Amino acid sequence: MTAGDRSHRLRILISCLDRPGIIAAVTDALYQLGGNIVTADQHSEDPDQGMFFMRIVVQMPDAADRSAAQVIEHLAPLKERFRMNVRISPASRIKRMAVLVSREDHCLKELIWQCESREIPAQISLIISNHPDLTDRAVAAGIPFYHLPVETDRKQIAERRAAALIDGMDLVVLARYMQILSSPFVEPWMGRMINIHHSFLPAFIGPNPYRQAFDRGVKLIGATAHYVTADLDQGPIIEQDVQRVDHRQRVPDLKRLGRHVERMVLARAVRWHVEDRVIIHQNRTVVFP
Amino acid sequence: MTAGDRSHRLRILISCLDRPGIIAAVTDALYQLGGNIVTADQHSEDPDQGMFFMRIVVQMPDAADRSAAQVIEHLAPLKERFRMNVRISPASRIKRMAVLVSREDHCLKELIWQCESREIPAQISLIISNHPDLTDRAVAAGIPFYHLPVETDRKQIAERRAAALIDGMDLVVLARYMQILSSPFVEPWMGRMINIHHSFLPAFIGPNPYRQAFDRGVKLIGATAHYVTADLDQGPIIEQDVQRVDHRQRVPDLKRLGRHVERMVLARAVRWHVEDRVIIHQNRTVVFP
Amino acid sequence: MTAGDRSHRLRILISCLDRPGIIAAVTDALYQLGGNIVTADQHSEDPDQGMFFMRIVVQMPDAADRSAAQVIEHLAPLKERFRMNVRISPASRIKRMAVLVSREDHCLKELIWQCESREIPAQISLIISNHPDLTDRAVAAGIPFYHLPVETDRKQIAERRAAALIDGMDLVVLARYMQILSSPFVEPWMGRMINIHHSFLPAFIGPNPYRQAFDRGVKLIGATAHYVTADLDQGPIIEQDVQRVDHRQRVPDLKRLGRHVERMVLARAVRWHVEDRVIIHQNRTVVFP
Amino acid sequence: MTAGDRSHRLRILISCLDRPGIIAAVTDALYQLGGNIVTADQHSEDPDQGMFFMRIVVQMPDAADRSAAQVIEHLAPLKERFRMNVRISPASRIKRMAVLVSREDHCLKELIWQCESREIPAQISLIISNHPDLTDRAVAAGIPFYHLPVETDRKQIAERRAAALIDGMDLVVLARYMQILSSPFVEPWMGRMINIHHSFLPAFIGPNPYRQAFDRGVKLIGATAHYVTADLDQGPIIEQDVQRVDHRQRVPDLKRLGRHVERMVLARAVRWHVEDRVIIHQNRTVVFP
Repeated sequence: MTAGDRSHRLRILISCLDRPGIIAAVTDALYQLGGNIVTADQHSEDPDQGMFFMRIVVQMPDAADRSAAQVIEHLAPLKERFRMNVRISPASRIKRMAVLVSREDHCLKELIWQCESREIPAQISLIISNHPDLTDRAVAAGIPFYHLPVETDRKQIAERRAAALIDGMDLVVLARYMQILSSPFVEPWMGRMINIHHSFLPAFIGPNPYRQAFDRGVKLIGATAHYVTADLDQGPIIEQDVQRVDHRQRVPDLKRLGRHVERMVLARAVRWHVEDRVIIHQNRTVVFP
Repeated sequence: MTAGDRSHRLRILISCLDRPGIIAAVTDALYQLGGNIVTADQHSEDPDQGMFFMRIVVQMPDAADRSAAQVIEHLAPLKERFRMNVRISPASRIKRMAVLVSREDHCLKELIWQCESREIPAQISLIISNHPDLTDRAVAAGIPFYHLPVETDRKQIAERRAAALIDGMDLVVLARYMQILSSPFVEPWMGRMINIHHSFLPAFIGPNPYRQAFDRGVKLIGATAHYVTADLDQGPIIEQDVQRVDHRQRVPDLKRLGRHVERMVLARAVRWHVEDRVIIHQNRTVVFP
Repeated sequence: MTAGDRSHRLRILISCLDRPGIIAAVTDALYQLGGNIVTADQHSEDPDQGMFFMRIVVQMPDAADRSAAQVIEHLAPLKERFRMNVRISPASRIKRMAVLVSREDHCLKELIWQCESREIPAQISLIISNHPDLTDRAVAAGIPFYHLPVETDRKQIAERRAAALIDGMDLVVLARYMQILSSPFVEPWMGRMINIHHSFLPAFIGPNPYRQAFDRGVKLIGATAHYVTADLDQGPIIEQDVQRVDHRQRVPDLKRLGRHVERMVLARAVRWHVEDRVIIHQNRTVVFP
Repeated sequence: MTAGDRSHRLRILISCLDRPGIIAAVTDALYQLGGNIVTADQHSEDPDQGMFFMRIVVQMPDAADRSAAQVIEHLAPLKERFRMNVRISPASRIKRMAVLVSREDHCLKELIWQCESREIPAQISLIISNHPDLTDRAVAAGIPFYHLPVETDRKQIAERRAAALIDGMDLVVLARYMQILSSPFVEPWMGRMINIHHSFLPAFIGPNPYRQAFDRGVKLIGATAHYVTADLDQGPIIEQDVQRVDHRQRVPDLKRLGRHVERMVLARAVRWHVEDRVIIHQNRTVVFP
């Protein structure tokens, strides 16, 4: 990946049933438009009957928006012929994201930091919390902060306000947001809402995972970043990692180590999403490196 | 850990409720006997009411057996005073182990190899299998092989024969032994029978873990070595590790990578046990490094 | 990577200067021949002036040999047009390798084992050693063993005999072969001779790397697998890995841990080479995953 | 490690030549004072002629300062008898540190953050930089910032001012400080000044390590935290870690990944130092976990 001028680069994500000729057809179509392929990754589950996935970064001779329009038009017949899902996104476009948090700040801080230093090429446009604790953190970073307390009987109201606020965002990140979200809230964001789960899924689902991990005497603790679906903690996994622990670590130590792995795993998952590296298929993800 | 002459070294494992003065009392007692402490590791869960664990390697002026007897006698009053569990084992004594396998040979091979090269300072005295497949492997290594087929209605008979064969061993290792063992068979071996579980417990309990892992789209696969208890897959964990995977790996690839991590994790757990590094407490282990 | 029938699969490795249209041209050519692309990985250093690398696995309708001939013929004009280096290899062809060893057997054993279990899809056709120590190991595995002692004044003779023995092999692996090889011996094998270096290059070049590592108090030890060039230890790196150590490990312990990481790193490098995943460019490698 | 009340805890670091009876004598002395040992780690290079190292955390019945004085007095005869180096430090005492930086902020930010969240139990008392770039970062964290430009001909003046500012600190951290420090500046801080080196020492000493790593085609990049000695980059290593890379990463990507591993490695090293876990011996460290 070169730094260079990205103003004319498009990222194209394609998925369809595998059949002979897809790569040839797509790359030829881009070549016709004067595009030069910078990166092309492809994955076929099975050439016979499996799914085919492709990510292309193409340098176009024209400005980003015009190029995108041209490519969409030019790929239209292929899209129909191969019944492809196609997603096109100019590399120069900075995605806007909303972050939902509760009281813990380690994931939010890592996101702010990596967005500031452009390690994650995105912008945090607003922060929503059910607690006021992280107001200062948001203010210091110059990001609008919305405190939406979630009272038991008024959950719907809070969700409706949150839904209005996040409308138009490219991505919503639950950075240790400790509220269960309703299906109607979640559904419009399928594939664009990422959660960090404080354990190595599918182990230790449920409350107090570090206490569970301690009682079970595990030798590794982990974290999982996944897309949010209506089915809690069951959405497609984007990234996981672990940290070695031993008998010396008690529950507070596991939490401290857990915070490290959580913020790293979430930041990687968000970066990959923002760089259009992730395709969801069924309950799995293809993450192009 | 120096190589050196180990003929006069004792390994002492102690566990009891924590109280002031334990370390002083024990190390002083050993000093009285002319012992020189080579390694002393200690772990206190909580000085107030928690458990205290200690591993000492001590160089004794006398021959191993006489030293062990002396130390046992000399520590007896402390044992009573602090209500300690004490285990003493001459470092020079090569432990004898039985390995139970089914058809897959990767864990057995790693154990044979590491015992041959003394990376695991133990001797495989016999191999038992419910299949004849690995006979040649055992013969090539010069280890007695017992084929005990487990027919559904005669499981008890097979277990009884196996129990007779392993009688007197120091350790029993289930190196991918694909039969569920009965409680009466397992119970006498509590704390001396190690199993390798083909997944990162507590995730993916049950059959076909790699298929489960694939369907769930995990990004890491793992393995867990644990002591066997009557409660299947729930015994104290000794070691765990993981291997990174991605969308490219299909079930056979996950199995191949799984085999790698399984044999490494099992070999480490066996080595630690054989070197008297592991103390079990409740359902957890303290593993002294 | 699916298991499946590989008898009709070809692996194609391409490198050339990057220019627009390469992927389109190549994939279209394969499509014309009725090929279905199973995997296509590509890497461009820089679309402007950089190098372009591609690995394609393609399912051909015909038998392997005929397909290979057809593809070679069909790609010939492209080869000229883009000045491409092209390497074509039927996936079904089991590569033959010679292994050179001295006294230590850990790398040899890992290779024998992984070849036997088809984790490395290759065959060890012969073993050459400057010591007789590993004769039994070779015999047990049914592999011809040649003892070629290297006396100081007759080094050339030994090399000449070795050169004759390895003639016609696909790959030569130096699995802890502790002799320096002459340029004339090495040169014909450029890109097809792999060495395991007992340290994390470029650190600790020279003798006694574990002693050096101990004296320096490093917290990680590593190993490096690389292609052999006339310039000792400076060839293109294929794979590296490390293992965590601490103050407790003395030189013999570092060696034991080093052996683990050495055999794993070498086995991975050999597997990648054998699966045609590696392209050398200048002093670097592109390893397609 | 329990959280709990640490006001009465002392950390004791001991090193001396190994002889029989040291542990017994020290633990008995603490027991006489009513101390309860919470943690005791010990390392003997060789019971015959090697060095002996010990770290004890002891809960004392009295207030911290009085306890420390008592322990010092009480251990004095042992200190003489065994010719021990002894360091005693109340666990409740928050260490004060100065951070020297240049333009890059990733290490500084990680330190600020981990000090704020008490993951590192220390306080950053001042920041010194040869550039003004990070003024805002320091101001936002409420930490005094001193801009001391280092002009070629006035280096000595800058060092003298810096020496005056850091006087009385417990620790000085070079968090990507890109100036070579003179021996007179460094010497008084031997064992209390930590540097992060942007590579996996001893590889890639010198300028532009990521360019060197890229040209050499390494598959891992790393970072090393070490104590500063007059001999540049040669001081005792505290911690090292690596990050996997491949052919896709170009120099800017290596730098980005390097920043991650640098900040993690430095933060761990600083935490261990601040928690009195590190003993230096010759050019190595013993780091008690």
